[in-house]
Amino acid sequence: MGRIGRQTITLDNPPVIQAFAAVAGKKEGEGPLSDSFDLVFQDSFFGQETWEKAESAMLNRALALALGKAGLDYKDVDCVFSGDLLNQCAGSAFGIRGTDIPFFGLYGACSTMAESLALASMTVSAGYANNAAAVTGSHFCSAERQFRMPLEYGGQRTPTAQWTVTGAGCAVLSRQGAGPKITCVTPGRIVDLGIKDLSNMGAAMAPAAFDTLYSHFSDTGRAPDYYDLILTGDLGLVGSGILRDMFYREGVNISGIHNDCGLMIFDREKQDAHAGGSGCGCSASVLCGEIMRKMRQGGLKKVLFAATGALMSPVTSMQGESIPGICCAVSIEGE
Amino acid sequence: MGRIGRQTITLDNPPVIQAFAAVAGKKEGEGPLSDSFDLVFQDSFFGQETWEKAESAMLNRALALALGKAGLDYKDVDCVFSGDLLNQCAGSAFGIRGTDIPFFGLYGACSTMAESLALASMTVSAGYANNAAAVTGSHFCSAERQFRMPLEYGGQRTPTAQWTVTGAGCAVLSRQGAGPKITCVTPGRIVDLGIKDLSNMGAAMAPAAFDTLYSHFSDTGRAPDYYDLILTGDLGLVGSGILRDMFYREGVNISGIHNDCGLMIFDREKQDAHAGGSGCGCSASVLCGEIMRKMRQGGLKKVLFAATGALMSPVTSMQGESIPGICCAVSIEGE
Repeated sequence: MGRIGRQTITLDNPPVIQAFAAVAGKKEGEGPLSDSFDLVFQDSFFGQETWEKAESAMLNRALALALGKAGLDYKDVDCVFSGDLLNQCAGSAFGIRGTDIPFFGLYGACSTMAESLALASMTVSAGYANNAAAVTGSHFCSAERQFRMPLEYGGQRTPTAQWTVTGAGCAVLSRQGAGPKITCVTPGRIVDLGIKDLSNMGAAMAPAAFDTLYSHFSDTGRAPDYYDLILTGDLGLVGSGILRDMFYREGVNISGIHNDCGLMIFDREKQDAHAGGSGCGCSASVLCGEIMRKMRQGGLKKVLFAATGALMSPVTSMQGESIPGICCAVSIEGE
Repeated sequence: MGRIGRQTITLDNPPVIQAFAAVAGKKEGEGPLSDSFDLVFQDSFFGQETWEKAESAMLNRALALALGKAGLDYKDVDCVFSGDLLNQCAGSAFGIRGTDIPFFGLYGACSTMAESLALASMTVSAGYANNAAAVTGSHFCSAERQFRMPLEYGGQRTPTAQWTVTGAGCAVLSRQGAGPKITCVTPGRIVDLGIKDLSNMGAAMAPAAFDTLYSHFSDTGRAPDYYDLILTGDLGLVGSGILRDMFYREGVNISGIHNDCGLMIFDREKQDAHAGGSGCGCSASVLCGEIMRKMRQGGLKKVLFAATGALMSPVTSMQGESIPGICCAVSIEGE
């Protein structure tokens, strides 16, 4: 057990992803991954009074669904790692409230699914928890009005802009049980190459994805093709192109084994999603839906899940700052 | 290594708090703990253009000062756990940017110093890191305008209101070295008894503090007087009174061994701090200043550090929600 290289942590008792669940909104339910979600809701309010409360309810539902599949109650979960995009991470705090599960609040922006999986797997592997949950989500409507404009304003979007996914995902990690295992994690360093365009998060995050993936490969001695799939979080069309270019300049072609949750969740042309999906719920609902189902069925064996986040706030951008990026990678390996 | 009871995690290889540092603003530097800070700055901008940038700079300085005392460079630190109160935790993201230390972003509101210590100590004890840093801070001016009113408005404060501390603290945890050790941690559950008054955070957080402390004592079998000091984060005058009352109703008198960072940092009468200090920087600068100095000198042997946080946001409060509280406890024991 321990560290290899600068950044990577190997897990001697790799925790099993015993159960997982994904919930999604109407638009996501009309996309290419519609069959992979456990629940698609047609009402943007999810039966609540506000979009913010809907976000919490969605996250809570993903947790409950995943626990149900694992046959666990809240009291069986030793700790939950959760965060989201709302100010003060209110989506997760109010979503977890009432469960009585010991709570570690996180902020990793759109990298939260990987950050929560990393910390949950480290916690389970070390014997600190028998069962730990990793859960996150996002909501298009609450994100738009917090980060950009009121929806009623009807602002135009640039072609590089991404569409915040309405969705949530949860994975339950356990010491015992059957299922794909998390074998090592590579937490990310903050990388900021000076991008200031808030409508081009892919460009801001791609260098962080490259940095973490490059460290993962050099720390572990694995070549990219060790994996069946290198799955970035939400680089979208622009960021994915930049990431592949950066590897290509190092003499490595990852095009054949790389995909991005932001490219998978929407039909960009038919669904008007511009450069693709984004948000904590993007990588959470794609991983805990489509990808984990394929791993469970044996269609995918080894996946390097590398969720990406942009760590700016509207205030820092208004104060002239550039956008710091981060990427956390988690190695998931099936039987 | 492992769990005891519902919530507590025992650390088989208790990490050493090898170094610590606290920085503080002018008002804090005029208070009772003025001699315990490594650096007191007179300029609320800390040489920056904005208060938000000052907050990041302050946090970065606390990290650099603590590493300097430990004789470590950024590259020697395997990971840093950090968070703050600013939207999207921008204070920590921009404060850590440029260090190239693998980063785990947290949101625990004012409980962040304990949450970061808990996760850092779990990470070091498990062998995932040789050195890990826990760092957080807050700034009165950035907090006021984000959570309450523009300072220029000159709003009146109620007697139950607390004063956000301008300050930061950092602790460096290591597998080797001399110093007080973190022996176990009790992460908190979210507790919400329905308090909605944003000017009375102490009342909202006290039940969470009671819940975590009560769990800690029942999980470990330790009586409160096992410790020389039970140090809550920032309950202030109102919350501290409620906490003591709650224990008293259980037949336990903690008055003699309980203190609160929010009560220690200001002279409430002379410094117009109403119910006391608050903010991530409150418990961070008190722990990483006064308390750790006393532990290092042998004046304190066993401290249960239980930082408290209020997990609401201005939006959730405007939407009629109550204030969820949380408290994370960390047991620190000297030679």
